[in-house]
Amino acid sequence: MKALVYTDKETLIYRDEVNAIAKERETLIKVSAVGICGSDMHAYHGHDDRRLPPLILGHEISGIDEKKDQAVVINPLVTCGSCKVCKEGREHLCQVRGLLGMTQPINRPGGFADFIAVPNKNIYNVFSKTDLDSLSLTEPTAVSYHAVKIAEQKSFIKIQKSKILIIGGGAIGLLLTLILKTRDSHDITIIDINVKRLNVCKKTSNCKIAHPDDLDILDNNYDIIFDAAGFIATRQKSIQKIKQGGVIVHIGLSQYTGEFDFRKTTLQEITFIGSYAYTNEDFKLSLDMLIEKKLGDLSWVDYRSLKKGANAFKEIHDGIISSPKIVLLP
Amino acid sequence: MKALVYTDKETLIYRDEVNAIAKERETLIKVSAVGICGSDMHAYHGHDDRRLPPLILGHEISGIDEKKDQAVVINPLVTCGSCKVCKEGREHLCQVRGLLGMTQPINRPGGFADFIAVPNKNIYNVFSKTDLDSLSLTEPTAVSYHAVKIAEQKSFIKIQKSKILIIGGGAIGLLLTLILKTRDSHDITIIDINVKRLNVCKKTSNCKIAHPDDLDILDNNYDIIFDAAGFIATRQKSIQKIKQGGVIVHIGLSQYTGEFDFRKTTLQEITFIGSYAYTNEDFKLSLDMLIEKKLGDLSWVDYRSLKKGANAFKEIHDGIISSPKIVLLP
Repeated sequence: MKALVYTDKETLIYRDEVNAIAKERETLIKVSAVGICGSDMHAYHGHDDRRLPPLILGHEISGIDEKKDQAVVINPLVTCGSCKVCKEGREHLCQVRGLLGMTQPINRPGGFADFIAVPNKNIYNVFSKTDLDSLSLTEPTAVSYHAVKIAEQKSFIKIQKSKILIIGGGAIGLLLTLILKTRDSHDITIIDINVKRLNVCKKTSNCKIAHPDDLDILDNNYDIIFDAAGFIATRQKSIQKIKQGGVIVHIGLSQYTGEFDFRKTTLQEITFIGSYAYTNEDFKLSLDMLIEKKLGDLSWVDYRSLKKGANAFKEIHDGIISSPKIVLLP
Repeated sequence: MKALVYTDKETLIYRDEVNAIAKERETLIKVSAVGICGSDMHAYHGHDDRRLPPLILGHEISGIDEKKDQAVVINPLVTCGSCKVCKEGREHLCQVRGLLGMTQPINRPGGFADFIAVPNKNIYNVFSKTDLDSLSLTEPTAVSYHAVKIAEQKSFIKIQKSKILIIGGGAIGLLLTLILKTRDSHDITIIDINVKRLNVCKKTSNCKIAHPDDLDILDNNYDIIFDAAGFIATRQKSIQKIKQGGVIVHIGLSQYTGEFDFRKTTLQEITFIGSYAYTNEDFKLSLDMLIEKKLGDLSWVDYRSLKKGANAFKEIHDGIISSPKIVLLP
């Protein structure tokens, strides 16, 4: 089969690979569409010790179970299903969890290929093949949905009445906004240094947009902040802009450690919480939202051929892409 | 009147001061007992820009309204009562809040003196003068009660079933333990480098105790951690020891900034939340708990004469005191 293989830092090669083979309790899926995630970019830059080359990246996958002629969407988070947290419905916190398109803890090739072998319990059937390409957005939608759910659980101020700041106008930032709109949140501002992406966010969701250094982005002013970037600077921005008693949901993971203002966190009783992936229920609900077109027409997605995937990675790296999401089609 | 005045770094002088005078909507209280708080020590070390010398420190106060011959306990947190957060019952987050015994934002002398002027709405009447000395513990009890309440609100695992680690065996650490016991929490470990204090904690509350480097204090092992110290090292200890999905409640403020592991915070979905002071309701409930003797006999409190207060500060500084709390009596 053909696959786009991550072979070295900032290097992807579209080449012949050994065919994917389904093991016990797995099914071979013909890939229809795979999105490029920020974490794929992180690996591409050589910064992710859980994704070492050579590796087929990609975990935002839709496709077809050819044996059954069945359209499917893949939940790429593989969990044990039997530990305490799995039984509590918090599968994303399973300590032996793995993700498709990762080398750690188990080496599982991802979806930038013609075929992928997927554990049966990670396959969600969908009624029609018509929207399979856009349903590859289920995974990032679930990531955003989960983060919104956390904010709702942790915030004293109801999410409808919250002043919300989103750091990062990529797919996660835009999907957060679209999901928040379904929750009747009205006061949402996205900040990003990429003006092109910001404009797409504004056009798509009618949110407010601004450059991170815009003086209108006041200190101590937001009830909820989503940091979809996860740099030292964005965390510092978050703590500066958050209101007393507010909630910072940290989704991005660009820089792992760094300085932080624990004084304000304490004196103003800020909740800082990490958001990782999604539960199985979050994934299912996100898929339903997309099928029911609750997040709009998704015309902001940029579809490209898998063959030319290496170029897409390079263009994202160079910051010259306006779409918050590129989806590759084998 | 006599007062113990903080005049310079690590210097306290017991001397004559101008008599305290009650302004409008204030009452003059004859001080019965005042506890020494960690934040008083922080000021004493010259590390608190909200408490600059010369200043009468002390905010854990009980006393008598002599005009009415009425025993009282003082809530030292002065808030506006009219802003949004005050009206929501989150007075501790009021942006113009002040504390007795602080120079910022308003200079208000504290309780290490014969008399103190207190806003009327901060005075809580109590039935009897008998336990006035120990009721000076209401303030630190309210601090601990508030932190336990936050942990209950933010934790997925019920507090009764949570494995709990407390960093710091001072008054806050011990009071946390005693309050948690009233909530039927059974698995509580306190760590501290001060073995004498740890032994008092164990004797008083029957909790587990350990040195911070004890190998039995496993990584990824606690559902809830209270950091009652707030050093860079204790925050790093917290993030190392917390279980996936766990909650770190940060109460201490010894070091304001520093490195932190945001990777684990994100990948394991850790909630890190600051806990500051208490609401008016927390204060009232804490006072009731003490009056009803729900936290035991409090025989672990070390009472000393205010005259010899400077020595008490020095002994705490030198780490040679076994009691988690020293209360000074004018």
